[in-house]
Amino acid sequence: MPLDDTLTRHRDALLDALEADDRPRLDAQLPELRSADIAEILQDLIGDEDLLRARALLECLPLERRASVIGHLHGEEQLSITETMGDDVLQAVLEEMGADERADLFKVLGDDRREALLRRMAHREREELKRLASYEEGTAGALMTSDYVAIPAGMTVSRALMRVRQTAPDAETVYQLYVIDPEGRLAGTMSLRQLIVARPGARVDDLMIHDVIHTRVDTPQEEVARVVARYDLLALPVIDEASRLVGIVTHDDALDVVESEATEDIHKGMSIGTLEDGVSRVPLWSLYRKRVTWLVLLVFGNLLSGAGIAHFEATIAAQVALVFFLPLLIGSGGNAGAQAATLMVRGMATGDVGVRDWGKLLGRELLVAGSLGLTMALAVAPIGVFRGGEAVALVVAVSMIAIVLFGSLLGMCLPFLLDRLGWDPATASAPLVTTLIDASGVLIYFSIATLVLSGG
Amino acid sequence: MPLDDTLTRHRDALLDALEADDRPRLDAQLPELRSADIAEILQDLIGDEDLLRARALLECLPLERRASVIGHLHGEEQLSITETMGDDVLQAVLEEMGADERADLFKVLGDDRREALLRRMAHREREELKRLASYEEGTAGALMTSDYVAIPAGMTVSRALMRVRQTAPDAETVYQLYVIDPEGRLAGTMSLRQLIVARPGARVDDLMIHDVIHTRVDTPQEEVARVVARYDLLALPVIDEASRLVGIVTHDDALDVVESEATEDIHKGMSIGTLEDGVSRVPLWSLYRKRVTWLVLLVFGNLLSGAGIAHFEATIAAQVALVFFLPLLIGSGGNAGAQAATLMVRGMATGDVGVRDWGKLLGRELLVAGSLGLTMALAVAPIGVFRGGEAVALVVAVSMIAIVLFGSLLGMCLPFLLDRLGWDPATASAPLVTTLIDASGVLIYFSIATLVLSGG
Repeated sequence: MPLDDTLTRHRDALLDALEADDRPRLDAQLPELRSADIAEILQDLIGDEDLLRARALLECLPLERRASVIGHLHGEEQLSITETMGDDVLQAVLEEMGADERADLFKVLGDDRREALLRRMAHREREELKRLASYEEGTAGALMTSDYVAIPAGMTVSRALMRVRQTAPDAETVYQLYVIDPEGRLAGTMSLRQLIVARPGARVDDLMIHDVIHTRVDTPQEEVARVVARYDLLALPVIDEASRLVGIVTHDDALDVVESEATEDIHKGMSIGTLEDGVSRVPLWSLYRKRVTWLVLLVFGNLLSGAGIAHFEATIAAQVALVFFLPLLIGSGGNAGAQAATLMVRGMATGDVGVRDWGKLLGRELLVAGSLGLTMALAVAPIGVFRGGEAVALVVAVSMIAIVLFGSLLGMCLPFLLDRLGWDPATASAPLVTTLIDASGVLIYFSIATLVLSGG
Repeated sequence: MPLDDTLTRHRDALLDALEADDRPRLDAQLPELRSADIAEILQDLIGDEDLLRARALLECLPLERRASVIGHLHGEEQLSITETMGDDVLQAVLEEMGADERADLFKVLGDDRREALLRRMAHREREELKRLASYEEGTAGALMTSDYVAIPAGMTVSRALMRVRQTAPDAETVYQLYVIDPEGRLAGTMSLRQLIVARPGARVDDLMIHDVIHTRVDTPQEEVARVVARYDLLALPVIDEASRLVGIVTHDDALDVVESEATEDIHKGMSIGTLEDGVSRVPLWSLYRKRVTWLVLLVFGNLLSGAGIAHFEATIAAQVALVFFLPLLIGSGGNAGAQAATLMVRGMATGDVGVRDWGKLLGRELLVAGSLGLTMALAVAPIGVFRGGEAVALVVAVSMIAIVLFGSLLGMCLPFLLDRLGWDPATASAPLVTTLIDASGVLIYFSIATLVLSGG
């Protein structure tokens, strides 16, 4: 990638200059890099606990740039870096930030620091910050910014344009404008595109769309992102209980949510809890905790398989060759079942699959899983003949079809069942599904074996 | 959700009106729904093969709306619906579409249909369409639109604003403008925000950013989406080999890519191939093919476990109680290993983990997996004592630590190894990792058992 190459070159030059403490070279290199790129360098420095150099790098940046770079960092990193700053500098940085980033940074600070900063602020600023910082993480409120352009109902196009020009430097986006009534309620919306082609004397009320797609402060963030994606929105307005406009969620924040929710879902699919940071940066103790819970629970789940085996010890002792096929049969059932569960869980997360589709999907899975089981039975039957004769081959082939079919249907139905019980369907993770199918597979296999081999 | 409730109500009303063939009620309901919502209703009708009603619904819509709704459908659905249209109507629909959606629709049509449509077009339109439709799926070229606002270098702000006003109805976004030199090369960019606050007599060359973040037509779409996300872009300009600006990828398309790439990755993690449509709509035959390949390959992988068991038949026959712990031990190792692999694969996909981090991550995994193995050994040891005495408990506990540690390290390293070999790291799926660990686990467990139990 040409972009990556250039990036690496500038990055290395910057690190060299930093290493040599060469301020003129630093000043020459910094404008070549964007805030996101500088933030990445800073993350590495913080990760290596080289706070002195991290601080030196930040201090080369103009205040506005510094604020933007800090806005790109994760919570823990922000805390580390703010600890190297005095209250004066931190206050100045906060002032340069967008309202949503300011609130996010404020939330990671300690109580003393917060108090000190709040005391330095004007009343209105303080209340605004406290309000934005008060919304629960993972909701529209925590995601939104209050830097939007609000136009009072009744304004003319020319005056609205003037308002846009005035707020342009501060607003997160000036491309979608929100018309509010005297009570602050969201009355309509119009795009800057509409505004610039409109007759200057027209009133915004006559141009605006009245039926605005909006969301509420307590809407979960994945729902917010889904609405932005569904309607291709630049920004989604957020209202409070009294229908007052309180903020907007912009397209770039929605994109970040989609990305982080996908990561969360992928981890959940392997029974890993939500990590507060990337896998290379999250504290080891936290990584351990997020992985151990289900692993230990599933140890006990796996005891069911052991109990099943113990129950059939006589059959096994009589025909030890059967054990040869055990990992294969329960493994195959587990794989097919984990596939089925994953398809459903992801389908439900993206809105492609709804609870009302259950019946139709069950029919489809029955056909597909039946074909899969048959294919795999055909693949394994010759080995059965080779290892234990025709009777064993029959047992193995029939067991394969039964286990794959049962496993797939279990995997498919479990997410719906969990959803019905008010649980997260994603709890139907591959490890859980596999463990359940292992235990059932042992029972199915040895039951069929006992039946066929004692009968024959 | 209030939004969902309103949506369901309007949707049901529309379906009622359609059922009753009540045109006035249809006309009253349609403006209440957005294109994305109508598209969803249409998808259900097409899914139920009710093309007559689907057609009736579309014909109630004004042409522009019809184009927008059809743009929201998937390829197969678009093909079904266009087959109900004459060439005249289809041509009119194509003309109303954005350039990127037009090219996408064109690509799903049959050869005869394409020829017929191309003959009806003006030369310039035809070449443009053929060009956009020629880029390989999954690249920036296939994703981009040619509906952007290009400003010739040297233009004044007031003339540029006039140009924006003229192109506003057709352009995908007018909020980011691209300045091109006489050869059509990308010379700079500026936002409409900058333009409206600038002095009317100033030249765009003096205002624009020269160092434009851009990409090339052949860049893979996941890379394109990552750049849009990293720099919070509204649109990313795309250039050809001669550095000429040929299109832009907008934020909403980047969001769709992130969503569909995540789905693809989640499916890959369970050894499911890329589905061409949602799980509830994809043809059964395709779903079977995308699942069966790895399932059958892994049947043979699982034979390794069987072979391991066969090798230790004497140990097993002497101490049948050992089989009780087999599913538990290999299951636990498989779960821990699948977790480790998933963490790496996702980290690599989001750019959080790079190949250069391998050493550091190996050290971290060693510590975390060691702790996990120890915890699980402590959980399982008492059951070992209960089922087979102290010697068996020792074997089981030591095996648990060894298998979890080995499995986690294997799961962690496999994605890096695959990447090194030029494969997709995501091939290190849960089923593959689990199968490999099952086989290794059998060997580790029974080796330790043979050693301890024959020695003691």
